[in-house]
Amino acid sequence: MDQKVRVAVNGYGVIGKRVADAVTLQDDMELVGIADMASDYRIRIAAERGHRVFASDDAARTEMEAAGIPTVGTLDDLLGAVDVVADCAPKKLAAANKARYEAAGVKGIWQGGESHELTGLSFCAQVNYADAINRDWARVVSCNTTALSRTMHALHRQGWVHRVRAVLLRRATDPWESHINGTINTVVPEMKVPSHQGPDVQTMLPDLDITTMAGSGPFNLSHVHFAMVETTRPVSIEELKAALADEPRIAFVRAADGVVAANSVVELMRDMGRPRGDMWEVAVWEDSLSTDGREVYLTLQVDNEAIVVPETIDCIRAMSGIEADAATSIAKTDKSLGITKTFLPATTNPIAQASDSDVSTP
Amino acid sequence: MDQKVRVAVNGYGVIGKRVADAVTLQDDMELVGIADMASDYRIRIAAERGHRVFASDDAARTEMEAAGIPTVGTLDDLLGAVDVVADCAPKKLAAANKARYEAAGVKGIWQGGESHELTGLSFCAQVNYADAINRDWARVVSCNTTALSRTMHALHRQGWVHRVRAVLLRRATDPWESHINGTINTVVPEMKVPSHQGPDVQTMLPDLDITTMAGSGPFNLSHVHFAMVETTRPVSIEELKAALADEPRIAFVRAADGVVAANSVVELMRDMGRPRGDMWEVAVWEDSLSTDGREVYLTLQVDNEAIVVPETIDCIRAMSGIEADAATSIAKTDKSLGITKTFLPATTNPIAQASDSDVSTP
Repeated sequence: MDQKVRVAVNGYGVIGKRVADAVTLQDDMELVGIADMASDYRIRIAAERGHRVFASDDAARTEMEAAGIPTVGTLDDLLGAVDVVADCAPKKLAAANKARYEAAGVKGIWQGGESHELTGLSFCAQVNYADAINRDWARVVSCNTTALSRTMHALHRQGWVHRVRAVLLRRATDPWESHINGTINTVVPEMKVPSHQGPDVQTMLPDLDITTMAGSGPFNLSHVHFAMVETTRPVSIEELKAALADEPRIAFVRAADGVVAANSVVELMRDMGRPRGDMWEVAVWEDSLSTDGREVYLTLQVDNEAIVVPETIDCIRAMSGIEADAATSIAKTDKSLGITKTFLPATTNPIAQASDSDVSTP
Repeated sequence: MDQKVRVAVNGYGVIGKRVADAVTLQDDMELVGIADMASDYRIRIAAERGHRVFASDDAARTEMEAAGIPTVGTLDDLLGAVDVVADCAPKKLAAANKARYEAAGVKGIWQGGESHELTGLSFCAQVNYADAINRDWARVVSCNTTALSRTMHALHRQGWVHRVRAVLLRRATDPWESHINGTINTVVPEMKVPSHQGPDVQTMLPDLDITTMAGSGPFNLSHVHFAMVETTRPVSIEELKAALADEPRIAFVRAADGVVAANSVVELMRDMGRPRGDMWEVAVWEDSLSTDGREVYLTLQVDNEAIVVPETIDCIRAMSGIEADAATSIAKTDKSLGITKTFLPATTNPIAQASDSDVSTP
């Protein structure tokens, strides 16, 4: 390549800080800087980690400097020096930035909290990378939508899917803000059916028949999905495993290995040495895969903080036009981050599932 | 009636203590006594509340007396003085009691933790009361199965159900033992699909096509179900509401009233003055009811501690033969406990749903 794509990250929050780290790992991208309006420990760490910090505006810059955070300039200065901005600002604030990017002549990528209409293109690398080539605007879909897109794409491209029904159990809030949200000892069902993820998947897979229901529970690490997929013909477990194994960014976990719950998956990521414990892959419980001849059933876990990070990197690559081939970009991103298809090799001597979950009550 | 049915409750735990209280409220039943093997605060309260306490065996009796719990005799003494025993002993222990009941010539009712085969009859009053008339053995199905049986029966008897798919989110453990079970900040999916509730419903509704998936979360009050029901024809929301309204022991809650989550339903029961905060009804979120013309969608809540209590009372009535008509027994039980079809009258001025549940992440 002649020149690296110059990238800005606007909004150094849960997604933004991970995207910034991921951009720095790419040999065809340069992180010119990050922009934010906060002055707390999170932004201080950004500076400590060597990121060039820009303030959203002059007022924010004054506050940052007063807080001892060295700033290089404002967002406008940053926009003048980049090709693409990954907007990771909070939902509802992010959309308002479009005019600013347009005026600066930079391409913009938003996250899944924004509407499909904002950019006209919703993006998941392994589903529609080609659609983003040289585009000015795109939206990387949300964590849950990304997980559904990857897993259902694996089945859909085999021509197996008659209809998908999935129930999503969302984490109540993110770890960094868990002192704010009081969700405890309860479940909060969403009244709206379908929940937004189903229609959102259809922005990328328009002929996928999918309905989702959702709720959130008192935990802050990962979402869990229960998917029931009505198939066009009987699909065996072995076929199902092969299709999932053949799809990028999906990896199996096994209760037989002791990975019996969401916390086990999180602990596995920590033990693997992942930065911040991030899981960029969708974890599918291999030993939960079931079929009754009419449908296949999947249980999977989504790291809402991390799953869209590789998607954002691929989106930058597509929009900047430096790589026209989806598989090449995906492989490059995966190698840079350490994304794997195999968390743990399958053992021939699996331990028994240590689950007493149905002992106390049916 | 000539004589009251003489009832024993064996196992004064989560279900047993509630069944005991409910039996005392029936004018056609007499609670002769309760039996248990523990000597802790729970059994002491049974004595304080005026229940006659029997020990499981002589050893347990010695311990109870040593702990200051006055006992009337042993379980064998109790069995000699009753017509029916409601076995509410812990799962796996309960089945072993059958021979003892048989030897004593008393009828036996077990709870949903035991197998269908133990008694040959699984029971939910509004579904199959008649099958239990004068029988010697029956099993009241579990909390989740009861909730599914009631709600799906409401739709099934209209001829609407083509196929039911439901995801059950179970509470991790019961309040009284919440210091023991360490489930926190996680979700524990069950690897087995279908989970047992689907097949269990079919022990009463054999032609209901239903598949369930289940998991448990870090909360201890109630289960929450997400049900997707494929219908034989388009069913309108108004038809759906009418069918649920016409079925016993189902009551609506509304997010529009501020009942936005499982904890809100629990608080509603507390505010209604329910003993122990018990909810014997299935709570269905009226404003979650949805249809896309092909399927209807329901979100509901199950008080696992209480829902089977009225079923057990009706089962006693059917097995003892004192009431041949299901509707009469159900109405009698409902009146004695205060079971209602309407928790809160619908208002013409609903408040907006105070839900920000989708603000922080899609």
